[in-house]
Amino acid sequence: MTDTPLARWERHNGVVLAVASLVYLAGYAVRVLGQALPEALRALCLALTLAAWAVFIVDYVVRRHLSGRRWPRFIRTHWLDTLVLLLPLLRPVRIVQAYEAVQRRQNEPRLSLHARVIAYAGLSVTLLGFAGSLALYQQEHMAPGADIRTYGDAVWFTCTTLSTVGYGDLAPVTPLGRLVAVGVMACGLALLGAVTGSFSSWLLQVFAREGERPPEHAPEASRRDTD
Amino acid sequence: MTDTPLARWERHNGVVLAVASLVYLAGYAVRVLGQALPEALRALCLALTLAAWAVFIVDYVVRRHLSGRRWPRFIRTHWLDTLVLLLPLLRPVRIVQAYEAVQRRQNEPRLSLHARVIAYAGLSVTLLGFAGSLALYQQEHMAPGADIRTYGDAVWFTCTTLSTVGYGDLAPVTPLGRLVAVGVMACGLALLGAVTGSFSSWLLQVFAREGERPPEHAPEASRRDTD
Amino acid sequence: MTDTPLARWERHNGVVLAVASLVYLAGYAVRVLGQALPEALRALCLALTLAAWAVFIVDYVVRRHLSGRRWPRFIRTHWLDTLVLLLPLLRPVRIVQAYEAVQRRQNEPRLSLHARVIAYAGLSVTLLGFAGSLALYQQEHMAPGADIRTYGDAVWFTCTTLSTVGYGDLAPVTPLGRLVAVGVMACGLALLGAVTGSFSSWLLQVFAREGERPPEHAPEASRRDTD
Amino acid sequence: MTDTPLARWERHNGVVLAVASLVYLAGYAVRVLGQALPEALRALCLALTLAAWAVFIVDYVVRRHLSGRRWPRFIRTHWLDTLVLLLPLLRPVRIVQAYEAVQRRQNEPRLSLHARVIAYAGLSVTLLGFAGSLALYQQEHMAPGADIRTYGDAVWFTCTTLSTVGYGDLAPVTPLGRLVAVGVMACGLALLGAVTGSFSSWLLQVFAREGERPPEHAPEASRRDTD
Repeated sequence: MTDTPLARWERHNGVVLAVASLVYLAGYAVRVLGQALPEALRALCLALTLAAWAVFIVDYVVRRHLSGRRWPRFIRTHWLDTLVLLLPLLRPVRIVQAYEAVQRRQNEPRLSLHARVIAYAGLSVTLLGFAGSLALYQQEHMAPGADIRTYGDAVWFTCTTLSTVGYGDLAPVTPLGRLVAVGVMACGLALLGAVTGSFSSWLLQVFAREGERPPEHAPEASRRDTD
Repeated sequence: MTDTPLARWERHNGVVLAVASLVYLAGYAVRVLGQALPEALRALCLALTLAAWAVFIVDYVVRRHLSGRRWPRFIRTHWLDTLVLLLPLLRPVRIVQAYEAVQRRQNEPRLSLHARVIAYAGLSVTLLGFAGSLALYQQEHMAPGADIRTYGDAVWFTCTTLSTVGYGDLAPVTPLGRLVAVGVMACGLALLGAVTGSFSSWLLQVFAREGERPPEHAPEASRRDTD
Repeated sequence: MTDTPLARWERHNGVVLAVASLVYLAGYAVRVLGQALPEALRALCLALTLAAWAVFIVDYVVRRHLSGRRWPRFIRTHWLDTLVLLLPLLRPVRIVQAYEAVQRRQNEPRLSLHARVIAYAGLSVTLLGFAGSLALYQQEHMAPGADIRTYGDAVWFTCTTLSTVGYGDLAPVTPLGRLVAVGVMACGLALLGAVTGSFSSWLLQVFAREGERPPEHAPEASRRDTD
Repeated sequence: MTDTPLARWERHNGVVLAVASLVYLAGYAVRVLGQALPEALRALCLALTLAAWAVFIVDYVVRRHLSGRRWPRFIRTHWLDTLVLLLPLLRPVRIVQAYEAVQRRQNEPRLSLHARVIAYAGLSVTLLGFAGSLALYQQEHMAPGADIRTYGDAVWFTCTTLSTVGYGDLAPVTPLGRLVAVGVMACGLALLGAVTGSFSSWLLQVFAREGERPPEHAPEASRRDTD
């Protein structure tokens, strides 16, 4: 029903972009973590990373062309795409969308809304947390006076931030590391909102359902109060 | 109505499993905390712990058999049971279910939904927090450079984590201790979601009730204060 | 309408109990903070505190008598009252109820439900936070190796805990101080639930109200998405 | 319809006040951050700041006059205005209101309620966070034994507080700095409430919509993804 050229392009390229996202993330991860690997392998990773980025740029340019809009307007209406183009580490979240699209086309039985919200929030947070811990490690582990020295430290810091617990036994000290940490905090706030919002709406649904059943037990519930 | 062999097995064995869970937790607690106890008593605790674990394994195998499913499918559809089988410290949460089942069979007046959510969340969090503080203490108290040296420290750390406050005056330093702490954080997030969600849905219910009744009945809503 | 002897007792004694609660809190605060005051004044404060406590005990005993219940059952059904009897610092929260009762009798225009929830949550948290910071200061300021040395430190610590931020630049080190801090954390969780729940139900109400208005603007809202 | 003199005054002066708010904030920011600037420029900033404050005072006095109320009553019913008059750093939040008013008058397509809540919460938090970090930096950076020495530190501290993460690697040590931090914490709690509440009510709306439509339309809900 939405058979414009743009829609067709997006339908056909979803999987390509998802693969490119994974390649980008994997290449970046190997570059950052595998500093003891042979130089040739590290160069290959860099090449793969750049190639994936090129794919993102081509996709962005083609979509602008097919949308028939001018650059300024396109950039403004697709500011999220523009941001993700500049910071491809955010891209893995798009994999969640691609996965959803594939599943929908195959007409697989979809999960309930709550399960989907929890699954997508969990998947997005895992991918963003992984990307964030990589970026943090890259920025911090060489800085003078840094707390975060191993990748394990970066993962631990990311977990404490995502849960909004924030012990502060480790903390970033470089400006870029702190910027990454602020991004991770924003993800943590969103995760908290997703968990809390899901719980709240689930409770309300259960209530609505219980309200429909025969209410023999209802007086019971309030008798306690006047006990 | 659900009188399959599997349902019958689960109905009859609920209490056995709940007892085994408590035995496991108690045995583990005595092992971890009672390091000054005579060796014979500590060996007995270890034996009880292993026996309880054996009960869990037998239950898992029998349920797979009664479900009539193959192993891979059973493991995938019962991934939570599988996880709990590997980490029996998570099992006490099942006691909440057993308690609920017993209460339902005796047709006791059940609490209102909000009271139940709060009660179950509180009970689960207490049990998981106890198990988590034991595991943390076991991992950390001997580690070089550790902050968490006494069991009281572990309990304090667990409380600050469950409330997502996270002072960070104490923090785990071993990889396994940090892994346990991440699990406790997840419980804290869930607890926060339960508290917030309950409050939110309770408020919405009160609103709906106030909106429906004639305004003369407004004082009614707070008669419980004057008991 | 609820003119049992118990209800009459509670109606007549609400103000007495509220005054006794304030006297208790004020006496305790002067004892804890005014350690440079003349001994006679401090003894007077102690006497007032104990007198207020005696009032609470008399009220508890009379209510048990008027309720016509046996002790075990009364203690179980009034466990919150029992807890407050043992820890009178929790009592000021009851002032909120007394204030509400007075206002209702005078038929003053009551605030909307949201305003009341925010006002009661804010008032309760302020009173509990004050009591908590006093208790923390009393436990900690003399302890060896303590961070919390002045009353200002205790207030700052209490604020960071109530907001669940928890910097950890200061942290209690005594077991009793930590127990008080855990209580403050629980208040913080409840406050967070109240803020979040109020916001969530307020938003839902606004939605419901907007949904009733003529929806000329509704298509506008979704045109953005397909932009 | 609300064409009282007061309403007309407020309609005409909204933009003037918004400009004065920005001037105040900009002047304050240059004063605090630009301590190496020539003295003449700094004096100009101070003059601008005071002029903007004078504008606020005039507006407050005129509005009292037009409201036809006496001072005590006006101060009580406009306590938020009074607070903002004394602490003009809080004023930028009013810009959000002015922006909303302008947009409404121009009949521009307004955002959906969720988008507006998110946008206003984000804008308010950014402005308050900026003002808070300036005030924190001013109070702390010269204090003996302070952690917060650069403006970057103050921004980082503000971000960790707004997200309620609170590492505590940096913490204010002066009483006024801590007071500012408590204000920032309150903003953080409100932000958390806004994020969580929005998510929760959005989920409930999606549920209601999915429940109403025939299931064939389910894919509709996510067409926006394939934009």
